[in-house]
Amino acid sequence: MSPNIRIVLVGTSHPGNIGATARAMKTMGLEQLYLVAPEVFPHADASARASGADDLLARARRCESLDQALAGCRLVVGASARRRSLSWPEVDPRQCAARVVAEARGGPVAVIFGRERTGLTNEELERCHLLVHIPANPDYSSLNLAAAVQIIAYEIHRAGLAAAPEPGIPTDEEQTPADAAEMAGFYQHLEKVLVELEFLNPDQPKHLMRRLKRLFNRARPDQREVNILRGILTATERSRRRG
Amino acid sequence: MSPNIRIVLVGTSHPGNIGATARAMKTMGLEQLYLVAPEVFPHADASARASGADDLLARARRCESLDQALAGCRLVVGASARRRSLSWPEVDPRQCAARVVAEARGGPVAVIFGRERTGLTNEELERCHLLVHIPANPDYSSLNLAAAVQIIAYEIHRAGLAAAPEPGIPTDEEQTPADAAEMAGFYQHLEKVLVELEFLNPDQPKHLMRRLKRLFNRARPDQREVNILRGILTATERSRRRG
Repeated sequence: MSPNIRIVLVGTSHPGNIGATARAMKTMGLEQLYLVAPEVFPHADASARASGADDLLARARRCESLDQALAGCRLVVGASARRRSLSWPEVDPRQCAARVVAEARGGPVAVIFGRERTGLTNEELERCHLLVHIPANPDYSSLNLAAAVQIIAYEIHRAGLAAAPEPGIPTDEEQTPADAAEMAGFYQHLEKVLVELEFLNPDQPKHLMRRLKRLFNRARPDQREVNILRGILTATERSRRRG
Repeated sequence: MSPNIRIVLVGTSHPGNIGATARAMKTMGLEQLYLVAPEVFPHADASARASGADDLLARARRCESLDQALAGCRLVVGASARRRSLSWPEVDPRQCAARVVAEARGGPVAVIFGRERTGLTNEELERCHLLVHIPANPDYSSLNLAAAVQIIAYEIHRAGLAAAPEPGIPTDEEQTPADAAEMAGFYQHLEKVLVELEFLNPDQPKHLMRRLKRLFNRARPDQREVNILRGILTATERSRRRG
């Protein structure tokens, strides 16, 4: 399986779930585990639940921020149990897998999983190009963290086994999409400029920024385009200072 | 989801895995959990890992034998990590799910999962019409028990969501297939007669019986047909005694 596919766990509470995730990944041939600010790690429970996947656990990269874990990623998919009030492009695990496998041919991709009780924050979800929703019992959709990883990893493994990429998955062969850090830099820049422009209320920036992020993420700008957008922002700032 | 779909755990060692299985089932709308001779149950670890699925755990049926758990089942599928030396009809989780959902319209079906370390015995596998194999990393295919149940339950849930049954799944609408107890009775009868006939070496009956079971399981006899077969066996016995 491609070394370009990362599984990112954000703010995990229970070390046992980290170990079980490592095992779930390894059974499906995934090897890149990133841990963003785990509450307790390393821990004996993690090693116990990892079973024969302790090598993967030992190589897991611990990051202090999501930015760090997403460095260089061309596609970011967020696992989300909820259907969200503000709609975001959503795929099922099979569609997610086809997309992840296709994009991983071009560079690193990440699937990120949130905290056991509260999932991913809105800010974290907004870093994502897509959300993946595992279809579940509407009366009890509370999948264990490692169980959710197992399903996604299973679908990725299956998609990887299929010789050809699934039809109808658009990938941009010509340009490298901007990576997560470039997009984050652009959004910060954009927010700053919009506040300066008094277009955005700095006390309540989230709603509007979310809509903008959704828009740009859908467009998947490449690096050159992000540079152009940031050039516009810089030009806007310069113009204001002169004005 | 159909109340005709049973998940059967055989000889489970770790009560935590029973709890995690209950949770995995409930997230996918499955409710019928059967436990054949669990080593330790009930137990605090089971309840803890069940999380909000403790109702399902409380209603789990504890059986002393596999026969008891399979009572009335028209289709039995065995989960098997290994590709076996003696080949048995094998499906992947998606094919398994389509079949299980289609057959559950006609009566109870069971998917059985073996012990954590050793899986199902050959005798237990021979009770199955089909084996389901979860595609996995050939270098590390050791899925956790509840993780395996999660994948199968996920595919069953998806197959159940699909409005129509998948094409190409043969179901016999006219006749009721013989259930597990009827088939077990037939096989016992058959083995006894074959030993009497000195066709079968009573010290080494397994290899031949396995092939016969595979044959008849593939044919999926209905009740009337099993009655006919047993009638033949009875007639054979009677003839020998007269001879």
